[in-house]
Amino acid sequence: MSINSITDLSRLCIHTITTKPWSIEVSARNYSSGGVKGITVWRDALTGRNIRQTGEMLRNYGLSVVSLCRGGFFPSVDKKKREASIDDNRRAIEEAHELGTNLIVLVCGADPLQPLEVSRNQIFDGISAVLPEAEAAGVKLAIEPLHPMYADTRSAINTLCQANDMAEALASPFAGVAVDVYHLWWDPALETEIERCGRNNNLLAFHICDWKSPTADMLNDRGLMGEGCIPIRKIRSWVERAGFNGFIEVEIFSDIYWKQDQEAYLNKIITAFKEFA
Amino acid sequence: MSINSITDLSRLCIHTITTKPWSIEVSARNYSSGGVKGITVWRDALTGRNIRQTGEMLRNYGLSVVSLCRGGFFPSVDKKKREASIDDNRRAIEEAHELGTNLIVLVCGADPLQPLEVSRNQIFDGISAVLPEAEAAGVKLAIEPLHPMYADTRSAINTLCQANDMAEALASPFAGVAVDVYHLWWDPALETEIERCGRNNNLLAFHICDWKSPTADMLNDRGLMGEGCIPIRKIRSWVERAGFNGFIEVEIFSDIYWKQDQEAYLNKIITAFKEFA
Repeated sequence: MSINSITDLSRLCIHTITTKPWSIEVSARNYSSGGVKGITVWRDALTGRNIRQTGEMLRNYGLSVVSLCRGGFFPSVDKKKREASIDDNRRAIEEAHELGTNLIVLVCGADPLQPLEVSRNQIFDGISAVLPEAEAAGVKLAIEPLHPMYADTRSAINTLCQANDMAEALASPFAGVAVDVYHLWWDPALETEIERCGRNNNLLAFHICDWKSPTADMLNDRGLMGEGCIPIRKIRSWVERAGFNGFIEVEIFSDIYWKQDQEAYLNKIITAFKEFA
Repeated sequence: MSINSITDLSRLCIHTITTKPWSIEVSARNYSSGGVKGITVWRDALTGRNIRQTGEMLRNYGLSVVSLCRGGFFPSVDKKKREASIDDNRRAIEEAHELGTNLIVLVCGADPLQPLEVSRNQIFDGISAVLPEAEAAGVKLAIEPLHPMYADTRSAINTLCQANDMAEALASPFAGVAVDVYHLWWDPALETEIERCGRNNNLLAFHICDWKSPTADMLNDRGLMGEGCIPIRKIRSWVERAGFNGFIEVEIFSDIYWKQDQEAYLNKIITAFKEFA
């Protein structure tokens, strides 16, 4: 089992939301000067920008545009909202294409007003509806299983087993899975399901951060790698044994870090990446 | 599938922590006059009391003492703490015996300083260590799988599948499982695992409350039945089809409800039990 540390930054990607106080332009400049090689763009960071030019700007900084975050949110008791969501996912595919990335991460959604099984069916139907556009644009869709504490409103897909099931049922080279340690670290089946995900060529993305004890907020109190109890390096070894050798994406929502000086924070991210990823 | 509503209170049990502002004496008097037939006693409610006399007091109010909450918390990186925990579980068994209940609910524990697999082994070893005393006292131990959001410090047993695995490995009529809808509602394998739990005679307790959207606090913002998205009645039908016909236990931690008038709250619990359980 490979559990070597990573000594260079060639596989380090940072999500724009991780350094939310910065605009995408400032993020790109600072990531680049820090030696970071990848960026995942949250759609809100593109507001008011020419998307094609923004993609060029990122590449001019030497950054690979790893993915666009996020599509999904397919389920609703309201048919009109489901249709609007499918339209929005089509727009996300266009945006990804313009930005020059070949991957969209899907936070699949859930509606607390209906059973989880119904939401799961609507997720499957929603992805199926937009898959032709994704294929035409050369953009892959990564189902991200979310922690069960988000099953009410954010995702009815809460284990890697479920995400694997759905990706396999979609049976398209343009549908796969994103593995995020924050959502999945507790799962006793994680190692097996990562192996399965890789074997079926469905492992499209790998996100990291840490789980703090205590966690003060269900959404915005994620930890920097090393601050919590997630065995990040062990999970990375599983992901790599499953054949994944793409970017390792740092995705941290943190009211605490967003309040701090972002340049100092970026240095902490880089140090923590080398020490704990 | 039985999804009939419950029209009488003969199976309603309330946990003392649900009405935390009340002493156990006040809880017992009010539960009893409200027609509630069961009580689950949290150990803190027994502080400073003669336990045997408290048990008699409860029975004199016509209350069945359904279980003692809670044993467990076996894992630790510190061997002395693990030994202290085993001693504490032995005391809990004595207390259950004195109180006159034949069931202890186990919140199994976890230590964020060690891998989940190690915590799981220590849980198995801890339960094994106290099982002889449990058998001698005629007290059963119910492994309660806890929501994955508590995997860092409260329980390394986070699915009913894991609890079933452990109960079956312990292979004793004095080791089983407690099913709590709050912890398990999201699990796609829930129906199957409840059936398995019943088939192996391991289904010892059934706890209810609801999951609110949004949930403001990870510990103390549980909802009253009907306030959230948990399909309580559907899960009850699975539990009953699996052969369970014991008490339905209302266990709600809620800063909101604890601040309210507890008599009015008790009436709400009874109404919600009839309408949504």
